[in-house]
Amino acid sequence: MAIHLGANQYGKAENRVVRVYRDTPRHQIRDLNVSTSLRGSFEAAHTTGDQADVLPTDTQKNTAFAFAKEKGIGAIEDYALTLGAHFLDASPAAEGARIEVEEYAWERIDDHDHAFVRAGTGVRNTVVNVEGRGAQRKAYVVSGISDLVVLKSTGSEFHGFLKDRYTTLQETDDRILATSLVARWRYDASPTGDGSVDWDKSYDGIKRLLLERFANIHSLALQQTLYGMGSAVLEAHPEVAEIKFSAPNKHHFLVDLSPFGVENPGEVFIAADRPYGLIEATVTRDDAGDAGSAWHATPGFC
Amino acid sequence: MAIHLGANQYGKAENRVVRVYRDTPRHQIRDLNVSTSLRGSFEAAHTTGDQADVLPTDTQKNTAFAFAKEKGIGAIEDYALTLGAHFLDASPAAEGARIEVEEYAWERIDDHDHAFVRAGTGVRNTVVNVEGRGAQRKAYVVSGISDLVVLKSTGSEFHGFLKDRYTTLQETDDRILATSLVARWRYDASPTGDGSVDWDKSYDGIKRLLLERFANIHSLALQQTLYGMGSAVLEAHPEVAEIKFSAPNKHHFLVDLSPFGVENPGEVFIAADRPYGLIEATVTRDDAGDAGSAWHATPGFC
Amino acid sequence: MAIHLGANQYGKAENRVVRVYRDTPRHQIRDLNVSTSLRGSFEAAHTTGDQADVLPTDTQKNTAFAFAKEKGIGAIEDYALTLGAHFLDASPAAEGARIEVEEYAWERIDDHDHAFVRAGTGVRNTVVNVEGRGAQRKAYVVSGISDLVVLKSTGSEFHGFLKDRYTTLQETDDRILATSLVARWRYDASPTGDGSVDWDKSYDGIKRLLLERFANIHSLALQQTLYGMGSAVLEAHPEVAEIKFSAPNKHHFLVDLSPFGVENPGEVFIAADRPYGLIEATVTRDDAGDAGSAWHATPGFC
Amino acid sequence: MAIHLGANQYGKAENRVVRVYRDTPRHQIRDLNVSTSLRGSFEAAHTTGDQADVLPTDTQKNTAFAFAKEKGIGAIEDYALTLGAHFLDASPAAEGARIEVEEYAWERIDDHDHAFVRAGTGVRNTVVNVEGRGAQRKAYVVSGISDLVVLKSTGSEFHGFLKDRYTTLQETDDRILATSLVARWRYDASPTGDGSVDWDKSYDGIKRLLLERFANIHSLALQQTLYGMGSAVLEAHPEVAEIKFSAPNKHHFLVDLSPFGVENPGEVFIAADRPYGLIEATVTRDDAGDAGSAWHATPGFC
Repeated sequence: MAIHLGANQYGKAENRVVRVYRDTPRHQIRDLNVSTSLRGSFEAAHTTGDQADVLPTDTQKNTAFAFAKEKGIGAIEDYALTLGAHFLDASPAAEGARIEVEEYAWERIDDHDHAFVRAGTGVRNTVVNVEGRGAQRKAYVVSGISDLVVLKSTGSEFHGFLKDRYTTLQETDDRILATSLVARWRYDASPTGDGSVDWDKSYDGIKRLLLERFANIHSLALQQTLYGMGSAVLEAHPEVAEIKFSAPNKHHFLVDLSPFGVENPGEVFIAADRPYGLIEATVTRDDAGDAGSAWHATPGFC
Repeated sequence: MAIHLGANQYGKAENRVVRVYRDTPRHQIRDLNVSTSLRGSFEAAHTTGDQADVLPTDTQKNTAFAFAKEKGIGAIEDYALTLGAHFLDASPAAEGARIEVEEYAWERIDDHDHAFVRAGTGVRNTVVNVEGRGAQRKAYVVSGISDLVVLKSTGSEFHGFLKDRYTTLQETDDRILATSLVARWRYDASPTGDGSVDWDKSYDGIKRLLLERFANIHSLALQQTLYGMGSAVLEAHPEVAEIKFSAPNKHHFLVDLSPFGVENPGEVFIAADRPYGLIEATVTRDDAGDAGSAWHATPGFC
Repeated sequence: MAIHLGANQYGKAENRVVRVYRDTPRHQIRDLNVSTSLRGSFEAAHTTGDQADVLPTDTQKNTAFAFAKEKGIGAIEDYALTLGAHFLDASPAAEGARIEVEEYAWERIDDHDHAFVRAGTGVRNTVVNVEGRGAQRKAYVVSGISDLVVLKSTGSEFHGFLKDRYTTLQETDDRILATSLVARWRYDASPTGDGSVDWDKSYDGIKRLLLERFANIHSLALQQTLYGMGSAVLEAHPEVAEIKFSAPNKHHFLVDLSPFGVENPGEVFIAADRPYGLIEATVTRDDAGDAGSAWHATPGFC
Repeated sequence: MAIHLGANQYGKAENRVVRVYRDTPRHQIRDLNVSTSLRGSFEAAHTTGDQADVLPTDTQKNTAFAFAKEKGIGAIEDYALTLGAHFLDASPAAEGARIEVEEYAWERIDDHDHAFVRAGTGVRNTVVNVEGRGAQRKAYVVSGISDLVVLKSTGSEFHGFLKDRYTTLQETDDRILATSLVARWRYDASPTGDGSVDWDKSYDGIKRLLLERFANIHSLALQQTLYGMGSAVLEAHPEVAEIKFSAPNKHHFLVDLSPFGVENPGEVFIAADRPYGLIEATVTRDDAGDAGSAWHATPGFC
């Protein structure tokens, strides 16, 4: 009954890297939250405390900041790919590097050169997994958006569902549909990192499409809305292999005003916190390719 | 050494009232967080548990939702004034009613009739205090904005400060200035509630002015920036008697890249969480009128 | 219509000061969150940006850490009084200093010498306001506890309340009563800072009494429970002049299981998040003395 | 290039179920946060909006509350297993059910019959995955603890690590080691659900052992501490197949007081928020059995 080390991972989480481009009076700003980690054959570090194979998390932090200057920050996907490849090269015992980046958007105040206000409609992010050495080097890119809070005040139904002894929900052909959307899409393996994907353009197009589809799909269920959004993304974006959604159903319950002699034909709602429905779905292609470690998160804690 | 009841207040906090206007296919949505409370001569409730004078917090909740339909929701100031006057009338033992409302902004998706995305630049709010009965009825309105996150990547200095044995801070003539602004302004007492203030127009103008001034004042200190913002509001908005700011100085520290042989001329920063500077200031008129209970919050817990 | 600076305050918030006492192998640990601020005649800093009177918030931070070693950390009240007096002396333009300290409690793991686990029942805190110079020096101490989450599964009623058109709440003689208590008590002015109050002993006694009274008062309303708790503190602790409570009524609603043919005689509840009742009350003495700036918080934002 | 539905899951998250046992005057309380979900062949719901196979999340919620009375709540693992089996039976299209339960601990106030105070050292939880029908029914149980905040003020070193161009970290043989531990352990498949594991006893033993090992292992790295904790659990608990840790390294940085002429030999630290090290590790047996869907979380979003 011997005991041994299984999956493991270590790194520095939530480095708040802010990069100002000031080569001209019209500044640019990139505002990131960067988490890096390495995984692999780190037995000695765990079993005997020998750190000879361990590149400190402090070094990972230093590198995230140094690269912001040395390599610059363009699309977060490129920055993450560069960091991931570097860490894997710098750490012979590592088998994989995982780099996660969130980017906070800023808008100019009155088109000002160096004054900005935080924009609020969704947070862009990417997770890059880099593996292998030499000709075996692979890189997987999953990008996404979170905190995209959307609502439809009509155009949403829910009926015809399975019923059992514990079912009390009334069917409805008109309700509020609201969610704080998380969407993450995996880029097709082959173009990854070779410059063939325009990350910014791809992100902008997908975000626009997600909003447009949410608005215009007549919803019979949140599942159906998500599937429609995902299908549209796959159809319009050949660079995307699959897309996943996690969407809390932010319930808006119609308030019963009849005790006060007041009618409420779909006008006054209470927005509830908990519990909430949680709908998760993947939309994929028949030939979605090898996902490899694309969705790698942590060794089992998710 | 007798013991007695002092200041007190009770109510229902954080009613999440969502109101949809759907008289035409082009819906409107108002998304509020409403907290109501009453204060006054509630000795019996406290000392003997006799609730005869206590309008339940549950009733306050019901009323907040019912009024969303019966009275409708225009400017949050009007909705709050109406609720405050009602609760004071409904509760003979009460001496004051305090109504606090936050409003979450939504933007249309592609100008859609009934699909929206949450906007993120600041949360509008108001606190209304209503007092007195009959001809003595007074109402105070303090409106504001919170979570307005702004940043300047240059145009900010800090030097010439007082030094003592514990001072190590270096003087600088170029730093990042960033804050998550809270601003609250008290409307002059006389016009309150009589329809002479266009609340929405006043709010929009003040928000615009705060952003514009933040952008264009060359900052020698956050204090000076805030004072300049406040002065501009008072000068342009005669309906405002005074304005208060609470502004965390969200430090962005220049990262020392010299150990890696990399220069960093104001380009790479780490955004810190804690500790943070906290700057608070009031800008007021020489004749600012009677603030009465305008700034009333809780009986001492703030 | 001249404009001028009103109430103002600036400082460094949330310094996370951890002090280890290691003079013997049996370590002691004090884990604090320290916020300091100064207020007074800081017109130049605001109107012209001249910082000559401003002791930087960075210096305040340095001092909070240095004093943890130079002066040591005993009771948080003594540490705060020492910091407050120092800052007022170090800043000629200041009229008052406000020091707020939270302390996080740790318990030893198996009575270990240097291994600890965070304890969770309430966070101790203090707010000290120091004013005046020389013989006019005054210091006010308000100490308290927050996040003290308590619940009674019976022994709580609520009935006989005022009813109006919007009242639908049913009267009850048995409900769950739960709150996350905030209590803050002002120490009588005269002994403040002169060593006559044993802060730790006073805190321990008050916390114990608050819990005991919450448990044993048969509740007719949360107001009556709070008043009974406050009265008991004032009766047993002559060093306390008044006490304030802020208590969210954390509603536990009985779930209707009748649609499933299941009875629910006070056994299954849903714990709700929002809205919640919010009950605030002060219990004071007939001769409570001068509160001075004891309850000073910020210049109007609370 | 056809498009189809991939992994999916839906349910009701964060049902706050509170169960009072009041058969005698000495009440018992169970305070849970329950999230349930189903996954499987739900194509129609997604592609056409046909909900005939979908047991509503509202029904899942009702059931979680009804079962708290009908089945009662003993160990959270038993409650979750019962719910999971029920949902799978109630939903012919489902292939798996995932039930996650957190339990909040309460302690009696002064051994009172019905008054409690929330205890704070860690939150117990379980995730149960139930799959298959009839003789193929399988159930996997992963239980754990989160928010277990622990600290050692000495007995922790970190040196001998890999260095590269970006390494600036100094080696140390004495530092503070602190983490907010998440530990989750998978129970061996065979006994799951058959009554052979005493869940409460197992949990209590593991929690005690984790604390004891954290305290008594002289740490050369957080990795080595975690591995030692995990090994001890596997050695003492044959019912556990493997254990995973996620441990943020909550940095406590020694403050440089030398500019003030003050020495700081390991006594004054600043507790930092971000960034933080994040160490994750699995400790497993050579024959750890089939994990099946034990670690199933969401279809890729973790």
